[in-house]
Amino acid sequence: MHPLKQLMYPSSLAFYGASNNPLKMGTMQLANVLGTGYQGKVYPIHPTESEVLGIPAYKNIADVGAPVDLAQLTLPTEVVPQALDECGKAGIRRAVVISGGFKEAAGDRGGQLEQEIKEIANRHGIRFLGPNCVGIFNSLCSLNSTTIPRPPMGGKIALASQSGAYTAMINPLLRSQGIKICQTMSVGNEADIDLADCLEYLRDEPEVKAIGLYVETIRRPRAFIEAARETVRKKPVVAIYVGGTEAGSRSSMSHTGALTGPDEVYDGLFRQAGVMRADDIDQMLDLLWAFAGQPLPPGGRMAVITNSGGPGTSLSYHIEKEGLSVPVFSPELSERLDAVTGRLAFVRNPIDLTFEANLLLFKQLLEIVFESGEVDGAFLYGIFGWPEFMVNLEKRLPDIKEIEETWEANYVEFLKQLAGVPEAYGKPLIVMSFIGAGSTSISPLTEHDVPVFPSASRAARAMRALLAYRNIRDS
Amino acid sequence: MHPLKQLMYPSSLAFYGASNNPLKMGTMQLANVLGTGYQGKVYPIHPTESEVLGIPAYKNIADVGAPVDLAQLTLPTEVVPQALDECGKAGIRRAVVISGGFKEAAGDRGGQLEQEIKEIANRHGIRFLGPNCVGIFNSLCSLNSTTIPRPPMGGKIALASQSGAYTAMINPLLRSQGIKICQTMSVGNEADIDLADCLEYLRDEPEVKAIGLYVETIRRPRAFIEAARETVRKKPVVAIYVGGTEAGSRSSMSHTGALTGPDEVYDGLFRQAGVMRADDIDQMLDLLWAFAGQPLPPGGRMAVITNSGGPGTSLSYHIEKEGLSVPVFSPELSERLDAVTGRLAFVRNPIDLTFEANLLLFKQLLEIVFESGEVDGAFLYGIFGWPEFMVNLEKRLPDIKEIEETWEANYVEFLKQLAGVPEAYGKPLIVMSFIGAGSTSISPLTEHDVPVFPSASRAARAMRALLAYRNIRDS
Repeated sequence: MHPLKQLMYPSSLAFYGASNNPLKMGTMQLANVLGTGYQGKVYPIHPTESEVLGIPAYKNIADVGAPVDLAQLTLPTEVVPQALDECGKAGIRRAVVISGGFKEAAGDRGGQLEQEIKEIANRHGIRFLGPNCVGIFNSLCSLNSTTIPRPPMGGKIALASQSGAYTAMINPLLRSQGIKICQTMSVGNEADIDLADCLEYLRDEPEVKAIGLYVETIRRPRAFIEAARETVRKKPVVAIYVGGTEAGSRSSMSHTGALTGPDEVYDGLFRQAGVMRADDIDQMLDLLWAFAGQPLPPGGRMAVITNSGGPGTSLSYHIEKEGLSVPVFSPELSERLDAVTGRLAFVRNPIDLTFEANLLLFKQLLEIVFESGEVDGAFLYGIFGWPEFMVNLEKRLPDIKEIEETWEANYVEFLKQLAGVPEAYGKPLIVMSFIGAGSTSISPLTEHDVPVFPSASRAARAMRALLAYRNIRDS
Repeated sequence: MHPLKQLMYPSSLAFYGASNNPLKMGTMQLANVLGTGYQGKVYPIHPTESEVLGIPAYKNIADVGAPVDLAQLTLPTEVVPQALDECGKAGIRRAVVISGGFKEAAGDRGGQLEQEIKEIANRHGIRFLGPNCVGIFNSLCSLNSTTIPRPPMGGKIALASQSGAYTAMINPLLRSQGIKICQTMSVGNEADIDLADCLEYLRDEPEVKAIGLYVETIRRPRAFIEAARETVRKKPVVAIYVGGTEAGSRSSMSHTGALTGPDEVYDGLFRQAGVMRADDIDQMLDLLWAFAGQPLPPGGRMAVITNSGGPGTSLSYHIEKEGLSVPVFSPELSERLDAVTGRLAFVRNPIDLTFEANLLLFKQLLEIVFESGEVDGAFLYGIFGWPEFMVNLEKRLPDIKEIEETWEANYVEFLKQLAGVPEAYGKPLIVMSFIGAGSTSISPLTEHDVPVFPSASRAARAMRALLAYRNIRDS
């Protein structure tokens, strides 16, 4: 069993550094463990409190008197070694060391302490994440040990990151788009477990369909390349790298004690590893979202279905800019589409329905183009923000409420049906819309794994990545 | 007076094509006119209804018996010429022709009809937007004649667009970021008023600080370049162009009847005109947002203030990637910062406060670096989503409510103070945060014109644009 398996699915958890002081990081983390639905045993270890956040606390780990799978340590730097040693003596073999002040700190002391905890861990056979990290999240056992509440649970995306913020602070961004995450690992200074280990572990996690990495340095390049190459045969890996400039490198040194390298070196390393590089966190999430929910396109020929000219033109432009094509449909296919739409001139690709809100039509057209064999994937623009659309009409035409209710029920149902088309045909669908995932006009799509992007360029880039990964996987 | 002035600030409005049928586009538009706070007179023209949406309707424009500044026509294509002629006879001199089916339609008939309405307009001295457009929005007179309710009113950004969607459908995107818009013009087929006219008009609108254009074609290149060159001496113009690929061009032809040109030609045209080109709508809005709210940086030296290593490193990396610099502070400046933070090693740029939520500190540090003369602008990461942060703690520590209330009041106050620093020092501030504008942790910033971006690359790109425009304006 991979060492991370026990760490990510602990059946019991000892917690150092939580108290009843709400302004302490450890307290916030424990509150999140207790508030996210984790079903394992939780043992706060506290020198003086008998209860922490309403559950019994223990003076020492030795007092727990039951086996413990994982310890999380959110303690002042200087006391971490002793606590870790006590964990080892109590039989704990996995740990998450949140505390900072180790190798990333100025002066020699931090480096010495990091060496010390490595030796202690080694002696006891403890494998650990950190130090200088923010904790873990695993929706599959409802465990959130980070400082941030309400991670968007579910989904098929995993993140392993040398920045805690890029695993936990991004929650509001994820929620606003409707992206869900199933596992995150903040690896911090990587004194023990590093990104290569995370890849090895995530490779065999069946629920994980796409892996994202935030990278300031690769500490074991050969191991990383090996782990990644084997991983990308099974699932895509996307990375962002931000160590490759002078200030990026300087910042990284004081962040995770990482020695960085030039952009080109990392580009080469990622290419060798089969890892796709994204420009930044938003772009990485875009790609992971597409990977997690959509089939890979057999080729680069794309259909564009729209009910508005500007987005249709923008999509066509950006699809071609990304090296994919928007082929003119055959007369036969155009005729089949015309039979549905009655608008022959507007169905040669893009298909422009102009101000049409009938989603059933969208679904029919999508099925026809997928069935034709003339395209390998499709883009759709044309989801109206139905409830939003009506706010001023409602004030003037009260009868409209009834129409709306029928409409809304149909709308949700049609969106669900639409979301099922890609899988049925083994071809990807990417939706463009300016409406966020908070709207019921969009959530039925995002809940069924159809990615929705607010711009044509982002939609097109995600589709290109799907094709690029197919080539990586099959090469 | 520029012809668009009367069109955008009409004191009375005749409305063709609205009825009591909620599924008609004209009805939706009239509902929005009536629901957005417009104070002018509104006269629905309808052949049979005596009331439309609860206000008196008129059989003919001649029956109105009062002067009318503007007519909006949302009618079947074939009846537009006659209606426009009647408007002319009734003394109306400005119009918005929403109806499609003109030059953009297949076959000769549409082109003929477009020629016809041009001649009618000419004969009466009518200046008009469209045909094939979605209407106008002007927050300065609370007029929204588009199909989409709830435009984000206010702000200093104006949009002129050959796509209706890119002026009206983007509302939810704007709201999710906290971006406000003061005027939008959907120009459609540009049978009369075109983008060059819009630039001439917007140049002299004092509330407009930044102009965005969606371009599928430039119909009068020389006039456009002339209008733009004079405009960019006063305010920045950002454009997206999507006609430059084969499918983009094909789609554009059936969208607005536009003949497009290769990307390089348009790049050259924009350069000559002093217009900055953005990749897509999201990027264009990013730049406009920064322009609308922040002073231009005197140079490219940037400070990074953060409470988290990853975003600090990412910002540093992307700032340098954009050709700006993140200079190491002088020992004197570092000492001044250390006196505030007590963390000398972490204040040499980036300034990394590590998990610090004290916004008063952020403000102090920002003032110190701006005052030092060592930087020309600053980036900040570190706004906590305060209410969100507490959800699990609240369940366990009910007393926390009190702390929270004090905190929240202070937080909002500190954010307001922070938002005032750029103007006080004449140097721009760009904030990076994963929290959306819906949160009270962010809205005090966006309401005070500080742009907030969810990624380092977007933040850095917007700052580069501020500097680039300074060079355009001063050259």
